[in-house]
Amino acid sequence: MIEFEHMKKISRTSPSKIVFLILDGVGGLPHPETAKTELESARKPNLNRIARDSLCGLIDPISPGITPGSAPGHLAIFGYDPIKYSIGRGIVEALGIDLELKPDDIAARGNFCTVDDRGIITDRRAGRLSTDENVQLCRLLNDIAIDGAEISVLPVKEHRFVLILRGEALSPELTDSDPQQAGLVPKKVEPLSPQAQRTAEIVNNFISQASIQLQNEPSANMVLLRGFSRYPDIPSIPEIYKLRAAAIATYPMYRGLAKVVGMQMLPSGESITEQLNSLHHYYADYDFFFIHFKNTDARGEDGNFRAKVQAIEELDDALPSLLSLDPEVLVITGDHSTPATLAMHSWHPVPFMLRSKWCRSDNVTEFSEQACLAGGMGRFPATEIMPLAMANALKLNKFGA
Amino acid sequence: MIEFEHMKKISRTSPSKIVFLILDGVGGLPHPETAKTELESARKPNLNRIARDSLCGLIDPISPGITPGSAPGHLAIFGYDPIKYSIGRGIVEALGIDLELKPDDIAARGNFCTVDDRGIITDRRAGRLSTDENVQLCRLLNDIAIDGAEISVLPVKEHRFVLILRGEALSPELTDSDPQQAGLVPKKVEPLSPQAQRTAEIVNNFISQASIQLQNEPSANMVLLRGFSRYPDIPSIPEIYKLRAAAIATYPMYRGLAKVVGMQMLPSGESITEQLNSLHHYYADYDFFFIHFKNTDARGEDGNFRAKVQAIEELDDALPSLLSLDPEVLVITGDHSTPATLAMHSWHPVPFMLRSKWCRSDNVTEFSEQACLAGGMGRFPATEIMPLAMANALKLNKFGA
Repeated sequence: MIEFEHMKKISRTSPSKIVFLILDGVGGLPHPETAKTELESARKPNLNRIARDSLCGLIDPISPGITPGSAPGHLAIFGYDPIKYSIGRGIVEALGIDLELKPDDIAARGNFCTVDDRGIITDRRAGRLSTDENVQLCRLLNDIAIDGAEISVLPVKEHRFVLILRGEALSPELTDSDPQQAGLVPKKVEPLSPQAQRTAEIVNNFISQASIQLQNEPSANMVLLRGFSRYPDIPSIPEIYKLRAAAIATYPMYRGLAKVVGMQMLPSGESITEQLNSLHHYYADYDFFFIHFKNTDARGEDGNFRAKVQAIEELDDALPSLLSLDPEVLVITGDHSTPATLAMHSWHPVPFMLRSKWCRSDNVTEFSEQACLAGGMGRFPATEIMPLAMANALKLNKFGA
Repeated sequence: MIEFEHMKKISRTSPSKIVFLILDGVGGLPHPETAKTELESARKPNLNRIARDSLCGLIDPISPGITPGSAPGHLAIFGYDPIKYSIGRGIVEALGIDLELKPDDIAARGNFCTVDDRGIITDRRAGRLSTDENVQLCRLLNDIAIDGAEISVLPVKEHRFVLILRGEALSPELTDSDPQQAGLVPKKVEPLSPQAQRTAEIVNNFISQASIQLQNEPSANMVLLRGFSRYPDIPSIPEIYKLRAAAIATYPMYRGLAKVVGMQMLPSGESITEQLNSLHHYYADYDFFFIHFKNTDARGEDGNFRAKVQAIEELDDALPSLLSLDPEVLVITGDHSTPATLAMHSWHPVPFMLRSKWCRSDNVTEFSEQACLAGGMGRFPATEIMPLAMANALKLNKFGA
């Protein structure tokens, strides 16, 4: 991948439009009975038609064998080396609920959880309590006061919240309290550097007080914290690519991520049809659009093969609205695979296609794992997508004399 | 390739088993009469059956065009950047004969060779003299005493020995005396840094005395030294991957290499059948097994196409014993190519296959150079094998939030 310093020099503005349609977790594995993946099982005439006109391939978001979290998976697609530009989970969560963070603020991702009378975690998500209950409980925790830091506890969805610490000389270099599995007790937060000693004490103090505040709750009687982090210093998409970039994403985390890389948030309803309506509405105002489709991942994580196939078909049905805009560059891919048979994110490479007038299309006629392997890009790192998209939009000058 | 610091964070233990069967030098080139490679010529129903269920590809142990020595070829397969983690030939040889080395000891690989009356090398291996003769000659050389270093000369197999220097302020920064081809005189050992000046003098003194001790030998009348080195500081496989790793290798060098990366040596007879018996015997005790099959390389280096084909068939015949264990992850590949037509290690990429329940197999139905090129991994660096194997064994957590 070419370095940002070079990209900044060769990128240029132009009237062409680039649309990235990211089908979260779209890659899959064969169903044991049919030997076909979710994509191979779906009726998807529009995706296949686009594949026929596209340059196809299979992307590795990080590298072979490595299962991406959602943040690194998307960062790679947006052109950022996902190892170098890591964004703390706390920050991603905070951005997703439109928090205005100061540079020194420290954010952590919180879970309400259930512990038994010995303090052992029995449910890391407190039965996925309702967002309404979450709001009530956060109000309770916001009463906690600790010397040396201003504390805010903000609800996200279901069992998720964000903890923000604001104050002098705090440090995010802390271990998680969340042991990431039930059957264990929450861990004490430890400083990873001497400067973080005082912050660790503040956080452990907060956890103790929260435990007391929540002790009479039926399920959400404890908190788990992870991903202590500050707002990252990351070069933005407008700065690197000279793009006016916008995101149409309904889930908090993806909105947060898009903000970190300098995209504007566009209002939209939750369905893909409403997302594409938003694209139509704002089409003239931006050069680059990131549309995030969540259902493929959600149904894959549910382990529901049939429902993931339906999510793909639902997406395919909505595509004519997107195609009617005929963007100069259309990229369709995913941030990682989520095979329904595994019911989790996986390491498998993800089908990719890029359609443009100048893409030099290949012989691929289907948008699927096997078919895309034979595409013109073969198997390649996801960080190459942005340069490819820019080139096909004729937004890059040549490199060197 | 993901860095070890990240791999350490995401690796986890699990009951699944990973087996690496390394067919030394298995890659080949077409026979001029049949236009088929050694693999394409061999009757190998088991290898082909495994290929059908596997993710296939072609590995570059180092990078295109670069012919790997045995040490870097194996290091790459074990996940080590073979440029960054270079292990001196002397150390590998010393470890292979179970020498206990101190951190400051310097080891060199030695050959007994034949020189004519002008001192010109006529046979770099002294007619591959017998190991018994070698033992006698090493005893002779052990009588050599030089101020400033304790000298040990230890027999390996046939014409090979190890020279160990122990003492204060020695340095391994020395050139080889072995010119690596017949028709030349042995080279003087030169220091590569000022601190190595004294060690160079000690070694040149040793060579002079050895030449006098050996002058009346009919064939082994001189020594050649190369690969001066110290024990490397290399992160171990147990440390990086949390694997209990074991090696079933009968040749000294491969045993030495396996020890350097933290594998336990398992006792075994020399045949592949006996090696697989050892695998059965110790199967419960380890998570990761490295089985080294030497004959493919040995017959390739002999330039004996037919014998290399037979070695592949011998290996294939033994495979049912391995398959009966049904390891969660089975990797079959080689550390480099050794085409019989070239009769030496070569730079050609090596067929690779990985079988697991989660591998997303491709359309490859034969284990061969051409067939594997169309596999799901395409052509890729060998250092990606370990992350892939770990992922398929479900021994990796996801990377990032």
